[in-house]
Amino acid sequence: MANKTPASDTLKGFTSPRTPKGTSGIVAPPPWHYVGQVTAIEFEADGEKIAPYLPAPMQMESTQCCVYFIEWQYTSETTEDYLDPVESQYRETILLMSGSYKGEAMAYCPFIWVDQDKALMRGLIQGWPKQLGSTHMSRSYALESKAAPTGLSAATLSVNGERYMAGRVQVHEADANMPAPSFAGSALVRYFPDLVKGNHQQPLVHELVQLKSRDVQISKVAKGEAMLDFTVMADHELSDFSPKKVLAGYRFQVALTVDDLKPLTKL
Amino acid sequence: MANKTPASDTLKGFTSPRTPKGTSGIVAPPPWHYVGQVTAIEFEADGEKIAPYLPAPMQMESTQCCVYFIEWQYTSETTEDYLDPVESQYRETILLMSGSYKGEAMAYCPFIWVDQDKALMRGLIQGWPKQLGSTHMSRSYALESKAAPTGLSAATLSVNGERYMAGRVQVHEADANMPAPSFAGSALVRYFPDLVKGNHQQPLVHELVQLKSRDVQISKVAKGEAMLDFTVMADHELSDFSPKKVLAGYRFQVALTVDDLKPLTKL
Amino acid sequence: MANKTPASDTLKGFTSPRTPKGTSGIVAPPPWHYVGQVTAIEFEADGEKIAPYLPAPMQMESTQCCVYFIEWQYTSETTEDYLDPVESQYRETILLMSGSYKGEAMAYCPFIWVDQDKALMRGLIQGWPKQLGSTHMSRSYALESKAAPTGLSAATLSVNGERYMAGRVQVHEADANMPAPSFAGSALVRYFPDLVKGNHQQPLVHELVQLKSRDVQISKVAKGEAMLDFTVMADHELSDFSPKKVLAGYRFQVALTVDDLKPLTKL
Amino acid sequence: MANKTPASDTLKGFTSPRTPKGTSGIVAPPPWHYVGQVTAIEFEADGEKIAPYLPAPMQMESTQCCVYFIEWQYTSETTEDYLDPVESQYRETILLMSGSYKGEAMAYCPFIWVDQDKALMRGLIQGWPKQLGSTHMSRSYALESKAAPTGLSAATLSVNGERYMAGRVQVHEADANMPAPSFAGSALVRYFPDLVKGNHQQPLVHELVQLKSRDVQISKVAKGEAMLDFTVMADHELSDFSPKKVLAGYRFQVALTVDDLKPLTKL
Repeated sequence: MANKTPASDTLKGFTSPRTPKGTSGIVAPPPWHYVGQVTAIEFEADGEKIAPYLPAPMQMESTQCCVYFIEWQYTSETTEDYLDPVESQYRETILLMSGSYKGEAMAYCPFIWVDQDKALMRGLIQGWPKQLGSTHMSRSYALESKAAPTGLSAATLSVNGERYMAGRVQVHEADANMPAPSFAGSALVRYFPDLVKGNHQQPLVHELVQLKSRDVQISKVAKGEAMLDFTVMADHELSDFSPKKVLAGYRFQVALTVDDLKPLTKL
Repeated sequence: MANKTPASDTLKGFTSPRTPKGTSGIVAPPPWHYVGQVTAIEFEADGEKIAPYLPAPMQMESTQCCVYFIEWQYTSETTEDYLDPVESQYRETILLMSGSYKGEAMAYCPFIWVDQDKALMRGLIQGWPKQLGSTHMSRSYALESKAAPTGLSAATLSVNGERYMAGRVQVHEADANMPAPSFAGSALVRYFPDLVKGNHQQPLVHELVQLKSRDVQISKVAKGEAMLDFTVMADHELSDFSPKKVLAGYRFQVALTVDDLKPLTKL
Repeated sequence: MANKTPASDTLKGFTSPRTPKGTSGIVAPPPWHYVGQVTAIEFEADGEKIAPYLPAPMQMESTQCCVYFIEWQYTSETTEDYLDPVESQYRETILLMSGSYKGEAMAYCPFIWVDQDKALMRGLIQGWPKQLGSTHMSRSYALESKAAPTGLSAATLSVNGERYMAGRVQVHEADANMPAPSFAGSALVRYFPDLVKGNHQQPLVHELVQLKSRDVQISKVAKGEAMLDFTVMADHELSDFSPKKVLAGYRFQVALTVDDLKPLTKL
Repeated sequence: MANKTPASDTLKGFTSPRTPKGTSGIVAPPPWHYVGQVTAIEFEADGEKIAPYLPAPMQMESTQCCVYFIEWQYTSETTEDYLDPVESQYRETILLMSGSYKGEAMAYCPFIWVDQDKALMRGLIQGWPKQLGSTHMSRSYALESKAAPTGLSAATLSVNGERYMAGRVQVHEADANMPAPSFAGSALVRYFPDLVKGNHQQPLVHELVQLKSRDVQISKVAKGEAMLDFTVMADHELSDFSPKKVLAGYRFQVALTVDDLKPLTKL
């Protein structure tokens, strides 16, 4: 029995699935609010190996890279995601390299992993090349315990049951500068391929963009020594970023809001 | 020490992350090959509640819906994903409703869940509104066991630790017709929003498309009685599709290849 | 080709698997050191429904129960588990009721869930009736953010893809007393059944024990209002503990060391 | 307000948590029914390294080992677990070595991993030294697909985000003998340590037992070539079992029922 009622043209939502009430999208409309605990490790990689990861017209500024392990909590402006922590919490590993665009220093992200679909989708929309992966990082507590040695933080990344990275930071300085390259203002590539036959090389979206955030707050930055091992298999391209020299480790908190993005150039 | 070597413009890959060798993309280039075991349940939903889920100019053909629980195995043409089953296997729950486009009957997918990022990304590219969710379905074995009663299949969907659906099929007919609506040739909406301020309502990609597959094989289709409960909370829009009447249940296998998509109309 | 070398009798380890070096046991030998962040909710349950959960000769002291959601970090004395946070971190939901043993007030634990095997095994050894379940609880940050409203903590428990509990605490008092019943000195039942035919009702271990810990530290205890819903299905026995009245919510940190247990009586 | 009703002494259940109705135990009372799909790989290990893993008075029969990757479906006699596949399905990796007890050939299990708590607990009760780990193995389908090459099966084991093993089997013989050592009639050690101070070396349960099963059915056994890599870190004792020579691979199904265990000797 066919029901020929005209279908609705009023589907709502910032992302799929778009629905009549618009409350089912995988991601709520911006603004998106974030607060997170960061363990970061600066290191030098092999310039010849990593330079080709920058999309033209970006240029490499230095061989300095930084990996950020972050435990985030998120909410949108209109929903109360923080009331369901399985939806609002996620963990992330971000790899950044030091680039520039038209002479302006700008980090670039070749690889990033999160452990949750909503974070993955918000990332794709901003140009982060997100994949799923499991980040674990040790926590600090106000109480003394052998289970949480003072100032020591360990972090690991595993993807599909394989360990990719393991790092460790022992801070001894309480009020240092931020690590570099920083993820604020990173250059990213937003990208949506076309599956239509003949168009596989002509993506529907392919654009160099710059991350924008507002209401950024940073706690005091603790700094110290670090170790970082890339245990990923040698045949994975991530191994091109294997540390030649580890520089320093950091611990801090960050809060920020995202509801904008800056297009730089079509690619 | 700055390294001013011109950055590469030769990043490769069908999806992000795009890299010098092009072997790190979350999804390999098509063709994509799939084989899967399906438990499907046909049911009637409330026409007034579900009609508004169809994007204009689609129209509703009937109130008949079908939910597909599928255990898939996947490989690309050029990679040997089947050698790493954690990457090649995934489970999926697809909800389809009965629509038409310009008079041609065509299923439409309002909701779908997978348990893996590669499947999620291939889905987004085809227009499937994929989110992460956990599908479990019982398996059949050649041996008799109380742990696998003959012809009985149970399936569940949980999302973020909440049970959304539970179904059950007892087949007694060995060679039936396929369930309807069928996912072959489904209408979908590919969609990529624009985060640039002022453009939140002007997506970069917003197009009604039709799923294309080739080299489709279907096993014999077993059919029988079914039960289906939507246990999702009443305030979730999925509850608009709660079964009014369960029609029949099915078990079969399907294999297919995807490397194309048919654009229908810009939205 | 048979190798008739006499097998070793020197297998080592505090738990299975016991091995020549003794470094592969699922749990390292005590002492076990813990530090954790707690969200706790006190409530009244139905006395007639819950009294039968106490093992004789325990008696019920009151209908007051308390559920603890805890994010733990753990290390043994001899290993450096904190360097691999995927092994040292886990989350737990503990349900306690108010009992007494020979006139001494003593909490009793009818249900508990953890998300990791090492924690499950350490629990079984102490008499905790542990099962696997997913606890999520919101975190506090030093920075202000809509993603972490000041003083608000939400917590949920899901088991096998079904939501069992959801709670919320808004603290407004910074230095309160601990919630009751407290998990320090809880009565538990250690239990190991015998699978040998005819002995299914004669467990090899069946003993009422009392939890012992040392070097206990408690942070200041924040207190406030709370909500608590048991969303578990009515046919699950956990629903016997559904809150009749929610009393108060708490947030605090705890650190402690375990390497002993006090046997009370054979059951 | 104290409620002095005498507590119940009628707690029921084969395992903890034991409750008034006895329907909440992590594991239901036996009989336990199993049916599973197996990928097995026989190999030779280094006799000097593995002999010390056998508990005296067992002796080593040969250096032949076998690893079994199994996808199980389970139900108890009295519950209908197969109706909730998230509870009834699990995946397992079993490592067996060739031992003997009083002159009778008997496999022994030094290491085993499952992905679910109910399976872990049933295992501990039988003496299996179970830990949690993620087993993945490719599936066969009736339809031809590049995603499931005929006769090819891949399997992997990951534990806490680290890859421990990767195997591959290509069968070409349809009706071979079972692999050896076989898990039927394996010798195991049931073990429950005592946490009471001073007793850490005097376990409450420490006994060599022999697995018993009934109503065993085995499908035809397919056999062929195999590869097996132990990718576990060299400092993990599992590396003592690294294959010196891979012998053959197998694919078959097995069904069996367990409700008994044979004690061999106290240890």
